[in-house]
Amino acid sequence: MAKNSKTQKLRIVPLGGLGEIGKNMAVIELGNDAIIIDSGIMFPANDMLGVDYIIPDFRYLLERTDLKIHGILYTHGHEDHVGAVSHVVEALPGVPLWATPLTAGFIQVKLKNAHLKAASVNVFQAGDVLKVGPFTVESYHVCHSIPDCVGFGINTPYGIVIHSGDYKFDPAPVDGKKTDYAKLAEFSKRGVLLLMGDSTNADQAGWTPSESVIDEAFDKVFRAAPGRIMVATFASLISRIHQVAKAAERYGRKIAVAGHSMAENIKMARELGILNIPNEMFVDLNRIGSMPPSKVVILVTGAQGEPSAVLSRLATGRHRQLDVEEGDTIIISAHTIPGNEETVSRTINRLFQRGAEVIYDPIAPVHVSGHASQEEMRLLINLTMPRYFLPVHGELRHLKAHAKLAIQSGIPAENVFVAENGMVIEADKNGVRKGERVPGGYVFVDGSGVGDVGKAVIRDREMLARDGFMIVVVNVDKKSGELLGNPEIISKGFVYLRNADELIEQIKETVSDVLATVNGHNGKRREKLQEGIGRFIYNETKRRPMIFSIINEK
Amino acid sequence: MAKNSKTQKLRIVPLGGLGEIGKNMAVIELGNDAIIIDSGIMFPANDMLGVDYIIPDFRYLLERTDLKIHGILYTHGHEDHVGAVSHVVEALPGVPLWATPLTAGFIQVKLKNAHLKAASVNVFQAGDVLKVGPFTVESYHVCHSIPDCVGFGINTPYGIVIHSGDYKFDPAPVDGKKTDYAKLAEFSKRGVLLLMGDSTNADQAGWTPSESVIDEAFDKVFRAAPGRIMVATFASLISRIHQVAKAAERYGRKIAVAGHSMAENIKMARELGILNIPNEMFVDLNRIGSMPPSKVVILVTGAQGEPSAVLSRLATGRHRQLDVEEGDTIIISAHTIPGNEETVSRTINRLFQRGAEVIYDPIAPVHVSGHASQEEMRLLINLTMPRYFLPVHGELRHLKAHAKLAIQSGIPAENVFVAENGMVIEADKNGVRKGERVPGGYVFVDGSGVGDVGKAVIRDREMLARDGFMIVVVNVDKKSGELLGNPEIISKGFVYLRNADELIEQIKETVSDVLATVNGHNGKRREKLQEGIGRFIYNETKRRPMIFSIINEK
Repeated sequence: MAKNSKTQKLRIVPLGGLGEIGKNMAVIELGNDAIIIDSGIMFPANDMLGVDYIIPDFRYLLERTDLKIHGILYTHGHEDHVGAVSHVVEALPGVPLWATPLTAGFIQVKLKNAHLKAASVNVFQAGDVLKVGPFTVESYHVCHSIPDCVGFGINTPYGIVIHSGDYKFDPAPVDGKKTDYAKLAEFSKRGVLLLMGDSTNADQAGWTPSESVIDEAFDKVFRAAPGRIMVATFASLISRIHQVAKAAERYGRKIAVAGHSMAENIKMARELGILNIPNEMFVDLNRIGSMPPSKVVILVTGAQGEPSAVLSRLATGRHRQLDVEEGDTIIISAHTIPGNEETVSRTINRLFQRGAEVIYDPIAPVHVSGHASQEEMRLLINLTMPRYFLPVHGELRHLKAHAKLAIQSGIPAENVFVAENGMVIEADKNGVRKGERVPGGYVFVDGSGVGDVGKAVIRDREMLARDGFMIVVVNVDKKSGELLGNPEIISKGFVYLRNADELIEQIKETVSDVLATVNGHNGKRREKLQEGIGRFIYNETKRRPMIFSIINEK
Repeated sequence: MAKNSKTQKLRIVPLGGLGEIGKNMAVIELGNDAIIIDSGIMFPANDMLGVDYIIPDFRYLLERTDLKIHGILYTHGHEDHVGAVSHVVEALPGVPLWATPLTAGFIQVKLKNAHLKAASVNVFQAGDVLKVGPFTVESYHVCHSIPDCVGFGINTPYGIVIHSGDYKFDPAPVDGKKTDYAKLAEFSKRGVLLLMGDSTNADQAGWTPSESVIDEAFDKVFRAAPGRIMVATFASLISRIHQVAKAAERYGRKIAVAGHSMAENIKMARELGILNIPNEMFVDLNRIGSMPPSKVVILVTGAQGEPSAVLSRLATGRHRQLDVEEGDTIIISAHTIPGNEETVSRTINRLFQRGAEVIYDPIAPVHVSGHASQEEMRLLINLTMPRYFLPVHGELRHLKAHAKLAIQSGIPAENVFVAENGMVIEADKNGVRKGERVPGGYVFVDGSGVGDVGKAVIRDREMLARDGFMIVVVNVDKKSGELLGNPEIISKGFVYLRNADELIEQIKETVSDVLATVNGHNGKRREKLQEGIGRFIYNETKRRPMIFSIINEK
């Protein structure tokens, strides 16, 4: 806390997570000192064609050369919170990182893959008080769908700012570690200026079910399954892996692991002591062929239907070591990320087609959300009693619903801020208000390009995806402008050329007709040709491929 | 019923609806006589790029020149049941159509738009017994999410074949017309050979809520709304429109209609006497500006976020007559069709951004499914007591779940058929079994082209959508093969060329390098050039645009 001075302005600068579920990132500034909470990525929507992922636009940080950034603090290891770490470390090489053991493990893997090194990665335990430059930050444990999650209480001259992280109040968490009610209540006693609360499930009534309901669902499936069991889940869902291991132990099954990221994460979590499964419970994937099917459970990646992950390979018969067989039981123990509904459905249908029994929500409660529902949100507000409230981590509809809950819980409407990325929230001794706007948009990552694919390129990809393109190459007489020989036609994504002889002939006729009329207007010949072909094609097919003409004078 | 003879084979040929939710179509044959039930379309998945819609592959019908098709019978007017009517009428011009009044209305509009005329459109009422060639077909009323829905009991020498249509057992339907329990029970007394049952919600436990729960939800919203109310729903959801009208009447609001299809359908349904709303309840959209906002409710199209429909125009400020304002309440009273989740979410968020209050499921129960859930499926099976069961209308996972329910309800497992489109189910005095396979795939409609866009074209569109393309046009010396002048580069969907000067320069260098090495190998020069450029681009950008080179010898 910067000299406990009330002369410096406090600024909260959300760079991600507001108006979207993904790429969380927020800057907390006190005068010229700052810390950052999280730096995540977001997965592209289906119509962001060719984009691999999206990172926050942190130009603001690069432009604020006067700002001393003392550290980046991570709440937990999910991609939407840590995914952009290598991009941020590359841009801000001197800044130390802070994370709990598992989160630090994920970060180190990412940095290694990007051939980068952070200034330092400071590992802390939930509950530790962190001194980050002039800031005193109190971490506290929260339940979510990955172990080692924290929220932060940041001390400022105007009161405590709480960043909830991703949380739920699971009354019976799998690892026994509950969300730290006591710390939250203590914050409230000391005076909370502002609560930044996770809004993901703000339109869901009630209380999110405990992870422990999954134990019962697993038990039922394990008891009935005649052959092999495969469980598809997120590679980072360590507690789910623990639940599978417990069920496997009860029913005398050994665990095999399929999928690189799953194997890596299990290894890391076991080394860190977060996942306590004895060695003898595991069996190599290559050895299960010689075991009775009823003695095996296989953990697999690809619960989102990602084409290159294990589950999708199994569904399409493209896995080197495994084949789905009659008698297999496959559990999809994961939430479908919005936008992936079609690929997940398709994967499930294909697994059925191969003779497997597939168990998924709503067939059985084999997954629960990791985020708080409305009653838990009310509880967080009531435990911490903030003077001001900033809903974070959600689409606008979730932020609005969360704001409404906060107002119902007694926070004055004028103290609740529904903001967008880049909208600065500033505080001083007179209170909290909305401030200036800084850039807060999307930065697309496509291949090794960061930010070089913008709206214009995506729009071209949309047009190409809809109707393809056609290139017409013609040779013309230099003097007369008359067509020489046959035009060459190259086309992709428009029609299947081999079955379109008649259309192609007509296009060639159109070319010759157009060239005959524009003879003399050499300058516009190319445009006229493209227009003429485009009009003909639209009349014939009601499609609008992109059309290019190339004219060679001979 | 063909002479009540037990010498003719009965064949059920599903051409659509099995393994998918959409494009329902089934052929029922007795010897050389046949009828068809429904002919629907399906909406393309997000990765079927550029496809407008999908129709069933009915090549089989065209190849069976010996088959006398006596009629096409429609269960109801939804697109996945009637959408392909013009394609079928064009292919089978002499075949009479049969439909209830509202369904016939929808069909006539489609035929008119396609400039086609059916041999005849025979209008019947639910409950009528239809004589269609040698077939005696007993229609019966079912509840769904559109009025005038029927199922069919088709008399055959081997017992009755029931086609359920889309149905639910709504205990309190809005129009008071319940599903015809008595007819179903009567069928069972006379002996049901086979039940073809709608599987859409086969993984949903319990009983689908009655449409009447929506009345309560609407009442709550109408009571609280301070300004205008807009209700977005399917243009065909006539009963929902009726519910809006009732709420409007209770709260003294007039109804305006925005959206051509919505206006057309309301007009038709009122003319047919299906929708009883007095004239004075309606007000022209152009007149609402002069009315108090609290006296207006506007029915709008576009509940799926379709970019050209009213709701999406309102969300993006592109509607000519209407603007969303602070104080507006917008109800999304429709189920999101799988694959549309992203566009619907985006629309909701944009409406919030414009200051509207948006009410959608799960915020309030403003929509219920039109399809039976598990308990209703059990009820249908128990009411009709079929000897054999064929789940229809669903993805494979739904057909499997429905089959499981049927077996639990007492139908022997060997009498339950999980089939795919094109798999013939045949029956004679010895019972029912799976028969031969006929074509049953997708036919893509793109623009005015039917079936000319296949997998190869879609694959090209995928590649173009991911990384775009580049065309490199070079002039070379005819004799030496050396590059003349500067290559011309045309590229779309790859990078934003104006910001890629350096890359373009390097590509030009690559062109010149490649040409220097392949000099002499004229035949492969083009391929070598494309390979060389492709390799360079991948190394630089990790992207793989399609690359074409055009070489002009001068």
